[in-house]
This record gives sequence, structure tokens and C-alpha cells, in this order.
Amino acid sequence: MKKHNFSAGPCILPQEVLLKASAAVMDLDNSGLSLIEISHRSAAFVEVMEKAQSLALELLGLEDKGYKALFLQGGASLQFLMVAYNLMEKKAGYLNTGTWSDKAIKEAKLFGDVVEVGSSKDKNFNYIPKGYSIPSGLDYLHVTSNNTIFGTQIKKFPKTDAPLICDMSSDIFSRQLDFSQFGLIYAGAQKNMGPAGTTLIVVKEEILGKVSRKIPSMLDYQVHIAKDSMFNTPAVFPVYTSMLTLEWLKNLGGIAAIEQVNEKKAQLIYSEIDLSPIFEGFANKEDRSTMNATFNLTDERLKQDFDAMCKEAGVVGINGHRSVGGYRASMYNALSLESVGVLVDIMSEMERKA
Amino acid sequence: MKKHNFSAGPCILPQEVLLKASAAVMDLDNSGLSLIEISHRSAAFVEVMEKAQSLALELLGLEDKGYKALFLQGGASLQFLMVAYNLMEKKAGYLNTGTWSDKAIKEAKLFGDVVEVGSSKDKNFNYIPKGYSIPSGLDYLHVTSNNTIFGTQIKKFPKTDAPLICDMSSDIFSRQLDFSQFGLIYAGAQKNMGPAGTTLIVVKEEILGKVSRKIPSMLDYQVHIAKDSMFNTPAVFPVYTSMLTLEWLKNLGGIAAIEQVNEKKAQLIYSEIDLSPIFEGFANKEDRSTMNATFNLTDERLKQDFDAMCKEAGVVGINGHRSVGGYRASMYNALSLESVGVLVDIMSEMERKA
Repeated sequence: MKKHNFSAGPCILPQEVLLKASAAVMDLDNSGLSLIEISHRSAAFVEVMEKAQSLALELLGLEDKGYKALFLQGGASLQFLMVAYNLMEKKAGYLNTGTWSDKAIKEAKLFGDVVEVGSSKDKNFNYIPKGYSIPSGLDYLHVTSNNTIFGTQIKKFPKTDAPLICDMSSDIFSRQLDFSQFGLIYAGAQKNMGPAGTTLIVVKEEILGKVSRKIPSMLDYQVHIAKDSMFNTPAVFPVYTSMLTLEWLKNLGGIAAIEQVNEKKAQLIYSEIDLSPIFEGFANKEDRSTMNATFNLTDERLKQDFDAMCKEAGVVGINGHRSVGGYRASMYNALSLESVGVLVDIMSEMERKA
Repeated sequence: MKKHNFSAGPCILPQEVLLKASAAVMDLDNSGLSLIEISHRSAAFVEVMEKAQSLALELLGLEDKGYKALFLQGGASLQFLMVAYNLMEKKAGYLNTGTWSDKAIKEAKLFGDVVEVGSSKDKNFNYIPKGYSIPSGLDYLHVTSNNTIFGTQIKKFPKTDAPLICDMSSDIFSRQLDFSQFGLIYAGAQKNMGPAGTTLIVVKEEILGKVSRKIPSMLDYQVHIAKDSMFNTPAVFPVYTSMLTLEWLKNLGGIAAIEQVNEKKAQLIYSEIDLSPIFEGFANKEDRSTMNATFNLTDERLKQDFDAMCKEAGVVGINGHRSVGGYRASMYNALSLESVGVLVDIMSEMERKA
């Protein structure tokens, strides 16, 4: 049975990417060798890394604008630390929009003063704070563009003189933005880019090299830039598979093309949530994420039936996070409109039965 | 044509592991979902992680001895830093046996005093220092068990009251040792364990929690232990493939069985090096590595012919590292005696032709 994979991440990837990645594990480009048993210094893999880096910059429209793309290990969680290690001299601003911002703040506090410029903790993070003031003299301002757990998404980013740093793990490559407004963007691969195990960092070189502390080599962006993401052995399979996904996106027409599909998917599910009396959305309407729709049943007694219908239709991964409960439909780039249609059909049928 | 893969790492993996890993990328255990698109919190993946951890401890004979196994990201290079961050209060000892020890020393110096208890730098690291004295009062003593670049290997480990920390990246699971002599062992996966992108850490819990500095979460062994290697999303594919390789090794008879094969492979190539007038070994005989045999041609004019013969026979990955030159045949666990035989045949034929 075909599965409709709404997992929050690691999540669905394009079928053609899975096919190519699986084949490369047996034999990379008819070399007689597996992707995972060749040297990362081989011409074949160096080409993979260079292509992944240049595709990332190209898709974001950041070529020739002073940015470098890196593929490192450690996920967004290591970036919480690296951002502060590399960029905080005294004081940085953080917008607190949920669990991931919170974790980033915790690590940053080890390196200097953290100013929480805004927070939506008062309403269990169901909205994006607005109208907050940003103090001057910040080393940087950190935001989380999309909050997987709560289903909120920043639509308009704050203006600031300090470098704007964005954790874009769960919505990178999903919508058109002026990406040059950011000094540094980071994203764990396992939503819109590839399998878990690699992290994309896109950084404007001019913001680096300004702190006085000594930075250990593995945590130093400048070290990784100087070595083109090859200071140490990279995570070969995750980088290769990310390269395939970026290639898939480019062939599809890039971010502009996928954004249209993502908007259609979001409209489809949010209309159903809003029209149906048996479901209610969790996130503030104007802040709703196009990637993760969070919703609850208005009558918990319907849960058993609804879950059974989802299971029967092959809909998987829609359980809400424990901090919110209910349901979460994650609709990353590789999820088809058809899959959202299958879920919405179940929701409508449920309403008729209820 | 069948390839004989002597790469120094990433390197050859067992064919049955490649087959299973490739299949899981398309469909994990007939679930209808790819290994790389399911949640790392799913029962299926939690089982993979637990199995990988328990197989590692079992194969090393460290079950029920106060050790924990972790699968983290960042390679041995991140361990250079984490070891010092977690264990160095004031002063640590390092045995310098080559490039990797050197890099570990560089990172440790950011956290305290490094005492170089011994070094073989005077002879371009072609031997393992012996008879050095170890000062008292060290927070730990760090050694590198096998030096891929130079082809040397520690046969007898130093006795010390301080916890003995070992970078075992390139010979873990290759030979029987009393692994309980170590306080912490770390190893990047990409030699004897799996693809690049995960690192095994085996640590005796009692040595942790003794430094006064605050440790960022992602660098804190105790945080990762508390979360069973799932503090953040693990590198799913590298961990899964490592689990398959450890399973393969267990089915083969464990370290005792593979050690015999490794010794035969090493004897075969080193006898050829010693008997043939056209080759000479680089490493000191008593310190020779069973994993990486380093050797040079006595007459550089033979190089072109020798390289051509290797290429024709499908022998790949035997170029020496730039710090040593010549050749390096890496003979990790998954390399067959047959492959070493093919290389030795070429070496003998070369001698007859010369």
C-alpha cells in the first residue's frame, strides 16, 4: 500500500532521490565502487560536495553575494552553539518562538548576554511575536523561521542593523524570500533537503572573524570555509542525497515552483480545518506554517475512528508533538498535493460520520 | 571488473552490508517507508540505535562493566575537542604518534596544559615511542592506537593511573585487546564500522562529571548518555549501516575471528615488502600496523609500470599520503585476503620484470 508520509522530520524525500541514493550505495556512477566506500578526497566525491554547495547558493539566489555554503555535521543543535561561539562577543538578541529557539538561547547563554527581544511562551507559542523593539548594539539577532512543533512561521522578518541569523531547518527551500537579508542561515537536512546527518550553513563571510575568543577548529566557520567543508571527513551519504534533492528541486523550477505547490497544500488543509466543526487549528491564523499544520479534534471521542481511518488509507506520521497534542500534518517539499488530498478526504468523511 | 579497494577511509565495507543498506533506503523491513524518511523516534529506528550500541559493547567485551556506547556526529575531529572539554581540568598527557595525535593536541591546548609524554616526530612518525615516563597528576592520557598515514600501531598500551583515552578510529574491532584498560575509546565509523557520518564513543561513566567548566549540551557526554544518543536527530543512515556491519562481524565470530584474517593479510603483504628488493617498508618493523601497510619503491622509475599494473587488476586506493609518499595498502576488516593476494601478485610480478 502506498504510504502518505506526513512525518515531521526525518521526513518524506522525492522517490527519484531515494532511487538514485539507493543505487549509489551499490555502485556510484558505474565506478564499480559504492558511494560510501570511496575516499572523500576522490574527484568523484569532491564534485558531489562542490555541486551541493553551489546548488544551495543558486537556489537561494545568493551566488556572488559574499556568501559561502557549508555542509557540516551535528545538526541545528550544534549550530545553536557554533553561532554563539563564532559571533557573540558580548550580547545577542533572540526571538523566542518555541522549543528550538529556547534551546538555542540556552546554549548562547554560555557565551554572553542573551536579550529575549520577544516571546510567545505566554500562549504556548501559538503565535509569532510582532512589534517588539530590538535594542542597539547586538552582536546579532537570532530567529527561527518555522516552528515545527507549534506550526507557526515568520512571514516578515525583523529589520535590524545587526546580522540576522536564522534557523531555517524546517522551511528552507520552501518559499521565496530575500535570503540576502540574513547574515547566516542554518538548516538540518532532514526536512526539505535530505536525510539526517548533515547541516547546511550559508554564511556571509564578512560577519565572521570578529570575536576575541579562541574557537576550536571544528566549531570555527572560517576553518570549514577554508577547507570547503572538508576539514574533516564529511557525512558522505547525507551530503550526496542532499545534492540529489537540490538537483530535483532545481529541475522542478526551483523555490518559485515548489512554493506554489506548498501554498496549495497549505490552503487545502487549512480550509478543511477552518470549515469543519470537528477540527480546530492550534496556531494563530496569520502565523500559520505552510510546512506544519497543527490541529486538534474538538471532540476527543472521535480520535479512535479518525486514527483508524488514517491508518487504513496509509496516512502516517500525523501525531502531534507532546507539547501541543492533537495532530500535525507536515507537508514538506517532497509531499504531494495528492497526499494532502487523501488526508483532507478522511477529515471530510470524519465530519460526515461525526 | 571487480575492484580491490585499499582506500584508507572511507573504505571498503562488506558486500552484504551494502546490499542491505541500499535496500533499506528504498524500503525498511517491508514497512513501505524508506529508512531515511521515518522518524528517528519511531520504534523501528530506536531499535536500530539500541542494537548498534549493544553490539558495540558486546564485541568489545564491555557489557556490564560501567561503559556506555554512543553514536554521535562530527567524527574523531569533534572528539579531539570533546575529550578535552569533558575531561581536562588542568593538565593532560598526549602521546604524539602522528598527524591525528597532533591535531588532538592542538585542540586540547585550548582547555589546559598538554604534556607530550612522547613523540616520534623526529623520524616522521615511523615508529611508536616507548619507555617514556608519564608524570603523575594527569587528568587523562591520550593515545592514538593506529596511525593510518604512517602505518604504525601501538601493540602495548601504557599503564597509567589516569584514565586512558584512545582514538581507535582506524583499528577498532580489528584485534583483541583488553578494552577495559581504556576510560574512553572513540572511533570515526569510516574504517571498520560503517560509512562516514557517525562516531562511536565508548566511555566508562565514572570518569565523567569531574571538570568545573560548563559544557555546551552538544559537547557533553553526559547529556548524550542521558538521551541514549538521541539528544538531537542522529545520522540515521550511517548509524543503521554501522549496525549492519557490527552484526556482520558478530556473525563472523567477532573480533577473535577477524583478527586472524587481519594477521594473515598483514603477514602476506609485509613478507612481500621484506623479501622484495624493489620495495621497502616505511614503518619500524615492530610497530607495523595490521591495518595500513606503508611502503615505497626503491626505484621511482618503476612507478609508472606498477601503477598501470594495479589499475589493470582493479587495485584502487593505494596511493600513499602526501606526508609519506609511496604506497599505502589499507586492509580493513572488510577487505578480503584474496584482494591482498592480488596486490602481492602484482608486486611479485613487478619484481620479476624489474
